[in-house]
Amino acid sequence: MLKEYLENVREKAPLVHNITNYVTVNDCANILLACGGSPIMADDPEDAKEIQGICGGLNLNIGTLNQRTIPAMFAAGKTANSCGHPVLLDPVGAGASSLRTRTALELMEKVRLTAIRGNISEIKTLALGSGTTKGVDADLTDAVTDETIPQTAAFAKEFSAKIGSIIVITGAIDLIADSSSVYAVRNGHPMMSRITGSGCMLSAMTTAYLTANPDHPLEACLTAVCAIGICGERAFARLSGHEGNATFRNYLIDEVCHLDGDSLEQEANYELR
Amino acid sequence: MLKEYLENVREKAPLVHNITNYVTVNDCANILLACGGSPIMADDPEDAKEIQGICGGLNLNIGTLNQRTIPAMFAAGKTANSCGHPVLLDPVGAGASSLRTRTALELMEKVRLTAIRGNISEIKTLALGSGTTKGVDADLTDAVTDETIPQTAAFAKEFSAKIGSIIVITGAIDLIADSSSVYAVRNGHPMMSRITGSGCMLSAMTTAYLTANPDHPLEACLTAVCAIGICGERAFARLSGHEGNATFRNYLIDEVCHLDGDSLEQEANYELR
Amino acid sequence: MLKEYLENVREKAPLVHNITNYVTVNDCANILLACGGSPIMADDPEDAKEIQGICGGLNLNIGTLNQRTIPAMFAAGKTANSCGHPVLLDPVGAGASSLRTRTALELMEKVRLTAIRGNISEIKTLALGSGTTKGVDADLTDAVTDETIPQTAAFAKEFSAKIGSIIVITGAIDLIADSSSVYAVRNGHPMMSRITGSGCMLSAMTTAYLTANPDHPLEACLTAVCAIGICGERAFARLSGHEGNATFRNYLIDEVCHLDGDSLEQEANYELR
Repeated sequence: MLKEYLENVREKAPLVHNITNYVTVNDCANILLACGGSPIMADDPEDAKEIQGICGGLNLNIGTLNQRTIPAMFAAGKTANSCGHPVLLDPVGAGASSLRTRTALELMEKVRLTAIRGNISEIKTLALGSGTTKGVDADLTDAVTDETIPQTAAFAKEFSAKIGSIIVITGAIDLIADSSSVYAVRNGHPMMSRITGSGCMLSAMTTAYLTANPDHPLEACLTAVCAIGICGERAFARLSGHEGNATFRNYLIDEVCHLDGDSLEQEANYELR
Repeated sequence: MLKEYLENVREKAPLVHNITNYVTVNDCANILLACGGSPIMADDPEDAKEIQGICGGLNLNIGTLNQRTIPAMFAAGKTANSCGHPVLLDPVGAGASSLRTRTALELMEKVRLTAIRGNISEIKTLALGSGTTKGVDADLTDAVTDETIPQTAAFAKEFSAKIGSIIVITGAIDLIADSSSVYAVRNGHPMMSRITGSGCMLSAMTTAYLTANPDHPLEACLTAVCAIGICGERAFARLSGHEGNATFRNYLIDEVCHLDGDSLEQEANYELR
Repeated sequence: MLKEYLENVREKAPLVHNITNYVTVNDCANILLACGGSPIMADDPEDAKEIQGICGGLNLNIGTLNQRTIPAMFAAGKTANSCGHPVLLDPVGAGASSLRTRTALELMEKVRLTAIRGNISEIKTLALGSGTTKGVDADLTDAVTDETIPQTAAFAKEFSAKIGSIIVITGAIDLIADSSSVYAVRNGHPMMSRITGSGCMLSAMTTAYLTANPDHPLEACLTAVCAIGICGERAFARLSGHEGNATFRNYLIDEVCHLDGDSLEQEANYELR
């Protein structure tokens, strides 16, 4: 099943518009190219609106949001909605500051979001309307474990039902939920949290998958999450000697470049809860 | 011949001021260092004007232009003109949005540009005053092929004569034209389009070549185009196993770091049309 | 001695807020993760103030300052001061433009800075109130050599006494001074100046060291300087064949990822002057 969704990305080469933070933007562009998509960045409000019109999907990431890029997010979001393009929100640091929390909540309210991808603390912040995120990493007390999967899965389904967006919660175990189903994914490697941008890259890639698979958004998100997780495992396995997080970043993108549908099917480790 | 232009860059270490997009800016800085130049970035209007005064050349790239950086481009452009510094314009995405097209056209009008480097769709947009660029990549119907070289070469010469700037059109075959001569370059590798920033890096590097070779701007552009193309070929040849686009990016910059004048002469594949 | 300071960083995982240039920001984030810290970037004035409140330290880098980020630096600086968080200033290009010089001087005046890290030209500019920095590199005539160490060390101590900040001057020989002591460090490799961001990365890393070692700021700075220098030496030793500056950048961060306290003690090459 997953194979088809990956191949659709390679075949259709979806053009993804990213309004994203300047920390990991280069990695987002390169991973989009690696997975078969095509990136474009435009964050001036006027430009963003028009550029979204020629793209297939929109990736909104509030990692380094500011007074100029926030209006661009709303403008591009509205255009995407009226064109029927998928929109993904990555609420980086929601809960860590009121500007971030407020902006993410307003985006949820005013833009129809196909999917939201964040760590558990960020997603809880959006569901509760406030939070206490520690920087850009999840609060340890929130972590999704085997024991907490049932309750977190129920929370994700309920939140998805309430707002009508697919909820992607990433961590040691990832959950991908719509209002009726939840997948749990056990791919990935802890080394992914030793580089900046694993989450941002996944968000960009997920947007490409959503764009190339418009009729199967839940499965598109699942496939992207499995794909980057497998690539993280493979990238870690390639590390030797003094290779560290900088090399890991390169290997991760390289693996996305090489991942094919058959390996994906074979190595994907997920279950329907 | 080309050897001398390369060596002038290594010898003079030109300080190049870049007002460029935040997607590929780190790669632009590192490739400038690799080729022997020295990068500086400044995009606040006041700062850009003054910084240009202490630099040797100016690279204007509209990849993520906004209302703050546009005035900086004009301010730095005017300073560069009054100091006699070369100015290169990279009209990223001209034709894809009206802000990009308009800004590029106004820069052409108000700043004396030594060279413009873009893909064929971007350059056609500037020549015609409007266009239909698909994102940041060239429209396939526009592609320069062996069959279309004569007409594209004639177009480039004519456009160069009209505006007084060297026209550099990059793609599978690259064309470098002034009003009387056109070079066609067949170096490079398709892998260069699987990374973000090949074009941006070439623009930054070309500005260094123009700065270090003020009396031979056409040949400076030709040399930079051949150099990055050769490095792309060499970088691709080094790829093995699961190495993909992230590693290719590193190898490309590494090769620029190591390229010497003799190899450049030997491997450059160009012809005067 | 140094070992303990390194291990404190790995143990406490200090959350460092960076308002830094967009050229090298990704490298700063990855080197912070490599050394054991955790990065967050926020440069909208409102956001920066609040984000600083949840962080442990602040790294201010004026590399691509603009009218929006300058107020963010002051806002975050004041919050850091009132929270008792260490603040480091990296005055990139001070002396090269009046906006940079003026902003750095105002930051010195209005924000209590724990440390300032720059090249000799930038630091002299701050001490004298004006300067003639050539771009972002030190003026050759200013270079710290064995002959000039005594006078530069005296200058650094005096400047430190005057403003109450630790002064870190980096170059072929590095000096780390407070009002009573000066360390000279001879680690590092010239290849570090062939990549963009060596200085920015050190500033980010030094902020992590200051944050994790609040009672020993001078030794924290010394340790960070030795650590990155050793990693530069090791990264250079790993280069082979056509590996150049792009690979060197990755190796440098990789080495920071692997450096342990014992190797640091063994390879640190410093003296108290």
